[in-house]
Amino acid sequence: MYETPKGYTFSAAMAGFKNPGRYDLGLIVSDRPAAAAGAFTKNIFTAAPVTVCKQLLDAGPSAQAIVINSGQANACTGEEGMQNCRTTLDMISDVAGIASTEILTASTGVIGPQLRMDLWEKAMASLKANLGKVTSEDVAKAIMTTDTVHKIATAKVTLSTGTVRLLGMCKGAGMICPDMATMLGFIICDAQVDANWWTTALKESVYKSFNRITIDGDTSTNDTVLALANGGSGAVAESDGDKTVLAAALLEICRDLAHMIVQDAEGGTKVAHIKVTGGTDDTQAELVARAIGHSPLVKTALFGRDPNWGRIVAAAGRSGAVFVAEDLVLTIGGITVFKEGRPEAGDMDELLDPVMEEPEIEIGILLGKGSGEYELAASDLSREYVNINADYRS
Amino acid sequence: MYETPKGYTFSAAMAGFKNPGRYDLGLIVSDRPAAAAGAFTKNIFTAAPVTVCKQLLDAGPSAQAIVINSGQANACTGEEGMQNCRTTLDMISDVAGIASTEILTASTGVIGPQLRMDLWEKAMASLKANLGKVTSEDVAKAIMTTDTVHKIATAKVTLSTGTVRLLGMCKGAGMICPDMATMLGFIICDAQVDANWWTTALKESVYKSFNRITIDGDTSTNDTVLALANGGSGAVAESDGDKTVLAAALLEICRDLAHMIVQDAEGGTKVAHIKVTGGTDDTQAELVARAIGHSPLVKTALFGRDPNWGRIVAAAGRSGAVFVAEDLVLTIGGITVFKEGRPEAGDMDELLDPVMEEPEIEIGILLGKGSGEYELAASDLSREYVNINADYRS
Repeated sequence: MYETPKGYTFSAAMAGFKNPGRYDLGLIVSDRPAAAAGAFTKNIFTAAPVTVCKQLLDAGPSAQAIVINSGQANACTGEEGMQNCRTTLDMISDVAGIASTEILTASTGVIGPQLRMDLWEKAMASLKANLGKVTSEDVAKAIMTTDTVHKIATAKVTLSTGTVRLLGMCKGAGMICPDMATMLGFIICDAQVDANWWTTALKESVYKSFNRITIDGDTSTNDTVLALANGGSGAVAESDGDKTVLAAALLEICRDLAHMIVQDAEGGTKVAHIKVTGGTDDTQAELVARAIGHSPLVKTALFGRDPNWGRIVAAAGRSGAVFVAEDLVLTIGGITVFKEGRPEAGDMDELLDPVMEEPEIEIGILLGKGSGEYELAASDLSREYVNINADYRS
Repeated sequence: MYETPKGYTFSAAMAGFKNPGRYDLGLIVSDRPAAAAGAFTKNIFTAAPVTVCKQLLDAGPSAQAIVINSGQANACTGEEGMQNCRTTLDMISDVAGIASTEILTASTGVIGPQLRMDLWEKAMASLKANLGKVTSEDVAKAIMTTDTVHKIATAKVTLSTGTVRLLGMCKGAGMICPDMATMLGFIICDAQVDANWWTTALKESVYKSFNRITIDGDTSTNDTVLALANGGSGAVAESDGDKTVLAAALLEICRDLAHMIVQDAEGGTKVAHIKVTGGTDDTQAELVARAIGHSPLVKTALFGRDPNWGRIVAAAGRSGAVFVAEDLVLTIGGITVFKEGRPEAGDMDELLDPVMEEPEIEIGILLGKGSGEYELAASDLSREYVNINADYRS
């Protein structure tokens, strides 16, 4: 069992935003102001809670609580949505005894409908009663939508000034192609840190983790990662060495959470790790990785366990990246299948069949002699993805 | 019943490249050299027949025959694939009595495997015996792969110098996101034309038709459109007026064929006509149209007949296009659903439910006051698309 970072308490309530009888409202409270950092969606239509968080963090990188609801995205809801969002922060201010300017917020669910303010009001009593009585796992469950499992990653690292703990949680299984942020992710830490350094460390971690996964290529309006560091452990991350250790732990948490999202992809049965190297620059490598990771033909072949490598090569070829066709080398599960413009000799189907049965498959693409590289984890595309997204409103 | 352009004969054979008992090899022969134009895939991995066609047309815009096989793409097959392609042209040269430098060729099917030259050789006897005994419809059937129907469009227009006929055929139901070309399309015409003008007219038509459809965002390695004009009618398209009339008919044929491809999308049940206007330029409008047309979330909602307009707005917002969120106006089936950053008043589900039942749905996006516009026809994403692409090698 992991240790929860010191100085944090949790609450959750069954507000009934979506399905009755399950937590859909979560609250994280720090016992003192924490250094706060955020990374948000690049979608032009930013949800009201994203706009509110940005305003709060612009005013100063400090916060003492995070409130999250699932079931309603509060996105594309205009000025009424902004007003509702601010009102919910006032409600939480009363519940937790914290100024509303110290509360960050995030929402996830269907785009368009206004928040059910009546349900928010009704939920406040139990949210107050439950404060300190529920666990971080309950909050991780409260933020789930089409997720099949709740997602938590933890770390404990020793700095020169003492031991600190990190705990991250996230949700996300569809509308996933994070751009500078993911669906929803929350990381709490009990180290004392410089807030500006913490913001930089979060952005770098997000860039190397959540931004390198894709389920369906759709970047949501609500993508948010928030990170608090409250100093509750008494340990300070001040020296360069300590900062390096803590940043590495933060990145590890983000990578673990990002991987959990792809593993829990809507209807997903497999994770493809697409590793592109040898590009003229990182951008060319990224174009190739994303074309493969988004290709419905590659994704359905993965689901069908069909080593149909021609679809991978064709996706690379239409990616827009500049490279020489004859230079490309394709490996699947470490086996070279295509090189110098033609398939390798041997019965590729027989060689690749066992690889295709694995839940995690490595697809390697060498583009040439350049130093550009990019890595992307992508889910497959199954009948169940279509079921989830065609038959239910999400 | 339509009139076939004058001076063309057809052949088809059951070579057994894929399934026995169906035509999979087609041949179009003109009784004299025709002005020949081609448009081809922009995929870096161009199939051998694409490379051979480009070489032939670069040497001179004239041809007298087109041979097409389905079942094997002859793509990513290296130098052996090129040699095989040239050998098949020599075989056709013997069958049709035409120099192999006057024969264009196209292939479609699985990427990777080499052509079955033994099956080609065996098929030549029946291809010769059937020449002039089968119809253009038999050739249209011979080029089908996952298509459920064969696709033919015809036109008859009167020029100042006489009446001319056009006939176009195409195949395509998956791996469809043509870029300067489509899967396979063949157009024959009996007007006499200037070959350079014919090439320009074809490229313009392709840009406005095949290039504006998408099924799965995957641009194939074999995309090819070929157009012959042999003068068999005795009518010449020489005056500006006649050229305008003939170019309009050519565009109409291309649009009809492109629409048939989207209608016959693998597993498709609906066609969305995405019309974006008011962009700062056409590129911004295209980015928005393609983001919506490729979004798995929009496509599954269309399949599920769910008026989940938030997914359309979110796709526009992540498209990379530059516009002001509050300026966007979304209409579905002519009904305004989202404007000034918020949903329109009224029960949108009730209003939109009948629209979602239609087989063709118009999605209108106004981005602002600019003159940029783009139109894209997109299929939906169904369980059957996944079945087709996961369970069978294609």
